Amino acid sequence: MKNTFGVHVSVTLFGESHGCAIGAVVDGLAPGIPVDEAFIASRLALRRPWGDIGSARREPDRFSILSGVCRGRTTGTPLCIVIPNEDADGAAYESVQGPVRPGHADYTAQCKYHGFQDPRGGGHFSGRLTAALTAAGAVALTALERHGIRIGTHILRCGGIADRPFADLDTDLAVLRERLFAVLDEGAGAAMQQAIREAAASGDSVGGVLETAVTGLPAGLGDPWFDTAEGLLSHGLYSIPAVKGVEFGDGFALAELRGSQANDAFGLDNGRIFTKTNHNGGINGGITNGMPLLFRCAVKPTPSIALPQQTVDLRSGEETVLRITGRHDPAIVHRARAVVDAVTALVLCDLLTGRFGQDWLGGETT
Amino acid sequence: MKNTFGVHVSVTLFGESHGCAIGAVVDGLAPGIPVDEAFIASRLALRRPWGDIGSARREPDRFSILSGVCRGRTTGTPLCIVIPNEDADGAAYESVQGPVRPGHADYTAQCKYHGFQDPRGGGHFSGRLTAALTAAGAVALTALERHGIRIGTHILRCGGIADRPFADLDTDLAVLRERLFAVLDEGAGAAMQQAIREAAASGDSVGGVLETAVTGLPAGLGDPWFDTAEGLLSHGLYSIPAVKGVEFGDGFALAELRGSQANDAFGLDNGRIFTKTNHNGGINGGITNGMPLLFRCAVKPTPSIALPQQTVDLRSGEETVLRITGRHDPAIVHRARAVVDAVTALVLCDLLTGRFGQDWLGGETT
Amino acid sequence: MKNTFGVHVSVTLFGESHGCAIGAVVDGLAPGIPVDEAFIASRLALRRPWGDIGSARREPDRFSILSGVCRGRTTGTPLCIVIPNEDADGAAYESVQGPVRPGHADYTAQCKYHGFQDPRGGGHFSGRLTAALTAAGAVALTALERHGIRIGTHILRCGGIADRPFADLDTDLAVLRERLFAVLDEGAGAAMQQAIREAAASGDSVGGVLETAVTGLPAGLGDPWFDTAEGLLSHGLYSIPAVKGVEFGDGFALAELRGSQANDAFGLDNGRIFTKTNHNGGINGGITNGMPLLFRCAVKPTPSIALPQQTVDLRSGEETVLRITGRHDPAIVHRARAVVDAVTALVLCDLLTGRFGQDWLGGETT
Amino acid sequence: MKNTFGVHVSVTLFGESHGCAIGAVVDGLAPGIPVDEAFIASRLALRRPWGDIGSARREPDRFSILSGVCRGRTTGTPLCIVIPNEDADGAAYESVQGPVRPGHADYTAQCKYHGFQDPRGGGHFSGRLTAALTAAGAVALTALERHGIRIGTHILRCGGIADRPFADLDTDLAVLRERLFAVLDEGAGAAMQQAIREAAASGDSVGGVLETAVTGLPAGLGDPWFDTAEGLLSHGLYSIPAVKGVEFGDGFALAELRGSQANDAFGLDNGRIFTKTNHNGGINGGITNGMPLLFRCAVKPTPSIALPQQTVDLRSGEETVLRITGRHDPAIVHRARAVVDAVTALVLCDLLTGRFGQDWLGGETT
Repeated sequence: MKNTFGVHVSVTLFGESHGCAIGAVVDGLAPGIPVDEAFIASRLALRRPWGDIGSARREPDRFSILSGVCRGRTTGTPLCIVIPNEDADGAAYESVQGPVRPGHADYTAQCKYHGFQDPRGGGHFSGRLTAALTAAGAVALTALERHGIRIGTHILRCGGIADRPFADLDTDLAVLRERLFAVLDEGAGAAMQQAIREAAASGDSVGGVLETAVTGLPAGLGDPWFDTAEGLLSHGLYSIPAVKGVEFGDGFALAELRGSQANDAFGLDNGRIFTKTNHNGGINGGITNGMPLLFRCAVKPTPSIALPQQTVDLRSGEETVLRITGRHDPAIVHRARAVVDAVTALVLCDLLTGRFGQDWLGGETT
Repeated sequence: MKNTFGVHVSVTLFGESHGCAIGAVVDGLAPGIPVDEAFIASRLALRRPWGDIGSARREPDRFSILSGVCRGRTTGTPLCIVIPNEDADGAAYESVQGPVRPGHADYTAQCKYHGFQDPRGGGHFSGRLTAALTAAGAVALTALERHGIRIGTHILRCGGIADRPFADLDTDLAVLRERLFAVLDEGAGAAMQQAIREAAASGDSVGGVLETAVTGLPAGLGDPWFDTAEGLLSHGLYSIPAVKGVEFGDGFALAELRGSQANDAFGLDNGRIFTKTNHNGGINGGITNGMPLLFRCAVKPTPSIALPQQTVDLRSGEETVLRITGRHDPAIVHRARAVVDAVTALVLCDLLTGRFGQDWLGGETT
Repeated sequence: MKNTFGVHVSVTLFGESHGCAIGAVVDGLAPGIPVDEAFIASRLALRRPWGDIGSARREPDRFSILSGVCRGRTTGTPLCIVIPNEDADGAAYESVQGPVRPGHADYTAQCKYHGFQDPRGGGHFSGRLTAALTAAGAVALTALERHGIRIGTHILRCGGIADRPFADLDTDLAVLRERLFAVLDEGAGAAMQQAIREAAASGDSVGGVLETAVTGLPAGLGDPWFDTAEGLLSHGLYSIPAVKGVEFGDGFALAELRGSQANDAFGLDNGRIFTKTNHNGGINGGITNGMPLLFRCAVKPTPSIALPQQTVDLRSGEETVLRITGRHDPAIVHRARAVVDAVTALVLCDLLTGRFGQDWLGGETT
Repeated sequence: MKNTFGVHVSVTLFGESHGCAIGAVVDGLAPGIPVDEAFIASRLALRRPWGDIGSARREPDRFSILSGVCRGRTTGTPLCIVIPNEDADGAAYESVQGPVRPGHADYTAQCKYHGFQDPRGGGHFSGRLTAALTAAGAVALTALERHGIRIGTHILRCGGIADRPFADLDTDLAVLRERLFAVLDEGAGAAMQQAIREAAASGDSVGGVLETAVTGLPAGLGDPWFDTAEGLLSHGLYSIPAVKGVEFGDGFALAELRGSQANDAFGLDNGRIFTKTNHNGGINGGITNGMPLLFRCAVKPTPSIALPQQTVDLRSGEETVLRITGRHDPAIVHRARAVVDAVTALVLCDLLTGRFGQDWLGGETT
């Protein structure tokens, strides 16, 4: 279904990097969810570039909610959020209409849309659209938090530096909620930012790994085949530009273990079943088991770099050397973190609504 | 949509491990695709346990095609394949109705289905259903091969042993097509099998990593958001029991590179655009670029092990120690390879049918 | 999604008129719904031809449930029902591979499937497949009846004869549940059967109108746009071969009324809101209002008639006169009634599951 | 999927009657379709109330295309059209928050959304949203016309007056394209308008029947089960507020015919197969046969009438008499005609894109 994702709660994205606006329609949300514009703005702020490690394009992200909210709460009908592009600057991008940028979608867009695509700044492929996804996700995050479900993502690795792993999730998720550069160890964070600056200084870029935890999720979400919790989450997460790998629990490391090491033994805690370890990331047989959900996304280095690159000019049909001069990010892993939270929240709202019905998310809760 | 996957070409799975039969319905396939029952049987043979590294349950997989094929070709209407369970043996599994098996779906099935699920051998969650998926995928593989699209998967790592990486894909895919234990380096394969035997001897199991390549795929498949080529493939691949990670191109390794290393430079070869490297696994911006598709799946070690495990008995509501005695695999990575091919083929048929219309896969007709 | 219908509860149909079997997969049904094979058989009996007003093809409809039922109840995983074709007789149909039968799908099947379709007896287009739909619907009917939701359909008009309109729905639906020829006025029913016999005697066929009522349905089902209760029901009902019109409430007659006549005034009955009339058939703004659902389906006369018909022979490419000699029904309106109930039950299960969640239909109720 | 409709080409609606804006996102349209804003405006003009037979609410429908169009053509990515509500007037509607309007969705909205819905002027249920649908449909109409596919709808009956039936479709569709009050016989049209005025004068409203023809459609669109051409069209058409019946070809009249009268004989015209009559409305077995598509929609009289009506006040929980004072239409059948064309165009684009692939609609044609 192209630019729409989700069965019970769905999100539709529209817009282009340098068009007049981008936006999202979220449908299927229960009626009665509080919509806090300040919270949406705070999530957009986590995604927005800042300092000397972000693009010089600085969009204020002054969003409007066109529909679906009445008296501060969701109505249950489609919620459309529009974010105007105010700092669009098509001029710097004109040259890319000819030479296709390596690592970008310029060439594949040409293959799919035959030259009718909007070429300015990646058009509809631009990471700019993740602002709309982040705004949509903010409403989903609020809905989940009212049910005690918390989502947090940290930068596990960036530029060769590692953050400390998750420890006490309650504390760690509370810390991440407030932190602009999402690390648990601020020393590691400072080193990562320095690595980003060094890459930028040499006209290059870095990638990283994001690690996400979700607590408070009920057991029983997901299906045995196809619409597994892993399948749905990864389907959504791969929409985030630059994500090239997704793994759950110990992921690829599980492939090196023996069954006796990889299995999570079950135990009882005051009559409640839990697993004593969580190598499977809170999912067995595609279905949540009530333990924290844990997964990681590999984010490749930003493809827009200042260093010269070999490519092909679509206009001349010849090989050429490209030097990208627009405003670009030397890293996006720290910005992508807000988008991972957003996608996760939307997928979980979809799963919860399918399981418990259309009203559940909006229900009066503490 | 639960147990149905795919928009233009879809597959629906049904059945339980120890019910009377399992099966699949494939819908949306173009009319006119040859259906070769011997080829389907050969794909099932690649998935079937064998030797001393597979489960003692030996199903003959005598499938019947109930519908959708006429005069040896697809009709364009739903194709239903049914595979009877002939070597089902519910007795050995009865004990698991109480104690939930670690790493399995027993507990999450209970959370989702409240005791109404078929508990015998994992019921609907059983890897047994991948036989139906493999049979369905065989028809899709035939359709793709007629268009010059070839899929092959090898065991990149298993039990601590590594196969050699892909080299010449034409040769490597031809080799894999015939090989029961899917490695490129038969010495590595022998060592892997020995590692599996050793794990089995100690009542344990091993996992591994599967690596897949697809050649001959046209550029332009996939969508910028949500229905990216990566998102659709990973959604399907996570249906394969035990898959806990999926990565495309260099995947998680990309996170450690700089942009100048990760970007694939474009070049011209007799007027045709290609990339000089393939770190992105044949996908840019969610859309295939005409280069070989490359991805890897992490397969966790089989959760059914003979070693005693701590768990909870759902009947008594108490902690207990479980010793699994049924017929189980000390590894499934070598069997899962045929399922990865099948899922990949079905997803690609879906993408191609969406892009080129309902008749394309069926090719020249009379 | 082709041969699959429904979002939360879905049904997939497969098979051909003269293939080895037909069948259906129902997915998304709550766990715990009793599956009564005798009741399924009784619904199939209502659809099966009988007496001198039905086709001479007499299928025993000995169905098998291959999956999704354990200990007499739904498991919550896909339920596959297969019905072998035991009285198939391809010989009488061979001639239709050339001349396309007027009013049938022979020509459009050729346009869509290019000659690869199974031509015997209409192949996948055959009304034979409604047996599988009826069986699937029987499980849905049981689920609904446990919640006090009752569905009944009568033959409002056939062969120029009118049944009496619905009066007391509780009584009328109870009567229809047992009646093989579904009329409220048995005198009218006898006259209709006589009209069918007369048409048959002259080598011709008749159509009719079916009227359906549903009681006990909660208010609040359906969506304002696209997935309205009317839209979903009609989408499903048009799958029934020969249905060419669907109307809700007073339907086309509403177009002749004034607003003051067409509006249903609201009133209070012991604190419960109801409408004093039901011109809108229990649906306002696409959403059920708690009043009985009422709709009618126009069923065209069976296209297979013995009278000579002008047509084109696809083999010779020339005009010809066709005399159909196979075993056919002079009317199907009385058989279609069971299929209307089935489709209605499946759509309502879909709506209820979407609204109240995955477990609701299975819940212990009185 | 709630407020989204269509598989290959989909439309998502958002907005409320008296919110800041309404809009639509159309996704899946081929790249390269010309987007003519003047043509969109002309279609909106056909839907807009006018003269003394339309609501006093006069929206200028100054739409903005936020995305999906570049250099005057579709890009192939989501096209979002937003139409601000400029003549919204919530004040007159405040009273309806208490008493539910008979024939409207006020009560069912309360049942579904529990008071969180926007109650002003019907909120998300308002016919106002059909402006967005009409704008979306205008792009679809352009795409179809480039392929020689023409759609036209006339008011077959209104206020007891009948238009003449379709005769020469080429001429009739050309006439309808330009006519504000869509009748073929302008005398009948004048009488209809007089009937509307008389109903308005007595505080009442009238309904009518719309008849639609589509020419130039290829054979082979639609599926045998569920996604039949009739099922998909009716599913969409029932979204149009006030539609309570849909019939294809001779529809309900077919139920009164014999098979020998209802069947359309096939003939040859210069080697091309056609049917000598068109009782089946261009569809056999759920699939288009290349003949003109013909169907009719029953439109009930506008439920908002000035006459006093019995109802219940949701605030007081008591019966009351309601006198509606807002700005309302004494008929909407003449306005709904543009919406029928829009829905039809969108459904046909969906079917054609599914059949012929993603590029077909945009392809260079004459």
